[in-house]
Amino acid sequence: MKDKTGSDFFASLQSIFPDFEKGWVWLAGAGPGDPSLLTLQLYDAFGKAECIVYDFLVSHAILSLIPESVERIYAGKRGGKPSAIQNDITDLLIDKAKAGTRVLRLKGGDPFIFGRGGEEALALVKAKIPFRVLPGISAAPAALAYAGIPLTYRNYNSSITFLTGHDLTGTLPKNIRWKELVSSVEVLVFYMAMKHIEEIVTKLLNAGRNPEEPVAFIRNATLPDQTVNTTTLKEAVMIAKTLSPPVVFVVGSVVALREQLAWREEKINLKSE
Amino acid sequence: MKDKTGSDFFASLQSIFPDFEKGWVWLAGAGPGDPSLLTLQLYDAFGKAECIVYDFLVSHAILSLIPESVERIYAGKRGGKPSAIQNDITDLLIDKAKAGTRVLRLKGGDPFIFGRGGEEALALVKAKIPFRVLPGISAAPAALAYAGIPLTYRNYNSSITFLTGHDLTGTLPKNIRWKELVSSVEVLVFYMAMKHIEEIVTKLLNAGRNPEEPVAFIRNATLPDQTVNTTTLKEAVMIAKTLSPPVVFVVGSVVALREQLAWREEKINLKSE
Repeated sequence: MKDKTGSDFFASLQSIFPDFEKGWVWLAGAGPGDPSLLTLQLYDAFGKAECIVYDFLVSHAILSLIPESVERIYAGKRGGKPSAIQNDITDLLIDKAKAGTRVLRLKGGDPFIFGRGGEEALALVKAKIPFRVLPGISAAPAALAYAGIPLTYRNYNSSITFLTGHDLTGTLPKNIRWKELVSSVEVLVFYMAMKHIEEIVTKLLNAGRNPEEPVAFIRNATLPDQTVNTTTLKEAVMIAKTLSPPVVFVVGSVVALREQLAWREEKINLKSE
Repeated sequence: MKDKTGSDFFASLQSIFPDFEKGWVWLAGAGPGDPSLLTLQLYDAFGKAECIVYDFLVSHAILSLIPESVERIYAGKRGGKPSAIQNDITDLLIDKAKAGTRVLRLKGGDPFIFGRGGEEALALVKAKIPFRVLPGISAAPAALAYAGIPLTYRNYNSSITFLTGHDLTGTLPKNIRWKELVSSVEVLVFYMAMKHIEEIVTKLLNAGRNPEEPVAFIRNATLPDQTVNTTTLKEAVMIAKTLSPPVVFVVGSVVALREQLAWREEKINLKSE
């Protein structure tokens, strides 16, 4: 099979990739961090882009795959920062595109899932800049896959809810109806949960969520230094205090499956035998 | 930049990929259908696997990327079929792995999101077969990205809920608390919604969801013949009757953004000018 891997195998692929035309902006998701989780189309775009504008959450391992000849602009910003910075970023994308540049806007995860990709796309439309959306694997599902926690499992749940731990103003979203949410949603996965973790856990408990329910914190998801901490909802804040972002926080019975399905740690154990 | 694309570029990548050891099973997500949305690690695995066991929802365009020398076994099944077939599949994976084969279990979307990957992983653990999970882009986020519908948008929503339209027995999941769900969840995305679409829409309306709320049906997501139908919740059943699976059904204010962000159709328009 070896002759089918590597160079020849990839060269034959070009027909499946879109053309990257001059003056276009591609809004792309770089996935959770592991560079092997990039999509083929994004990896191909690295070789076609002329300017890449990237966010804080794009991992070093991914940036190292970008050819040196491509201009890179860091548009880093952590959640909760003023939207003026967001305007600067969209202005930059528009100026570059108007100059005829092939611009790749690179975000962590998926651009349309808590990534403000919608806002940037609307700004491009307003400026009459043509664009394409390149989806990426979002942080939460990737984190759970690498932690050995199925997002859905027979008899456990038929729904999953993703939430953000803070909105653009930096506060926990105020419009969440916790009581109804907690009684109707089986598995909750929080992005950017650490800033307000104490408030989130308190609200979940006060709204009636079971204190013994299993929860997990997955830090640096999919990266070599990924860590996973499991506990119960009532002990969650204590564990959270030992962790810094980026962390995905999961609440739900599926977390218990990790006891059997922690394949990544199992693999390390097998290798060290 | 052209010299950086294609063969040389990919050959330099091998260090980022995991080893595929003999007797292992890799549970992989093939994404929604567009072959350029495969992850690099899955594409690499196509060249290393000795046997690929694939599902109904894996697209022809993706299967055509598998080297001819690799054994392919079709384990097709549509939702709602008896679990005996599921047991046959896991027995096959176990037998192949015990014989020392490198087995790639290939599912549409992501194996841990309504993909029964958890069930198969547990069966492997029970049989002491080592495994790895390769996440893929799930059908719903990819469908929305290609339809120009951001899953999250500032001021519109701070959560997303994914649900399945039927469980293993083929019926709409019975444990859904519609009233609480409908009043607490901002954007609902249903997988496999078509079988019970009338019941789903009725339940949403009876539970208090706004009849004028925008909804979208995305069929054959990310494939060349993808179609997107938008309407209101109260008209949804009428539209649904004209569609056959696979369809993703989205309910929420974000759907309205498609009016401006339908980049795929826009691209076709630009090209034909």
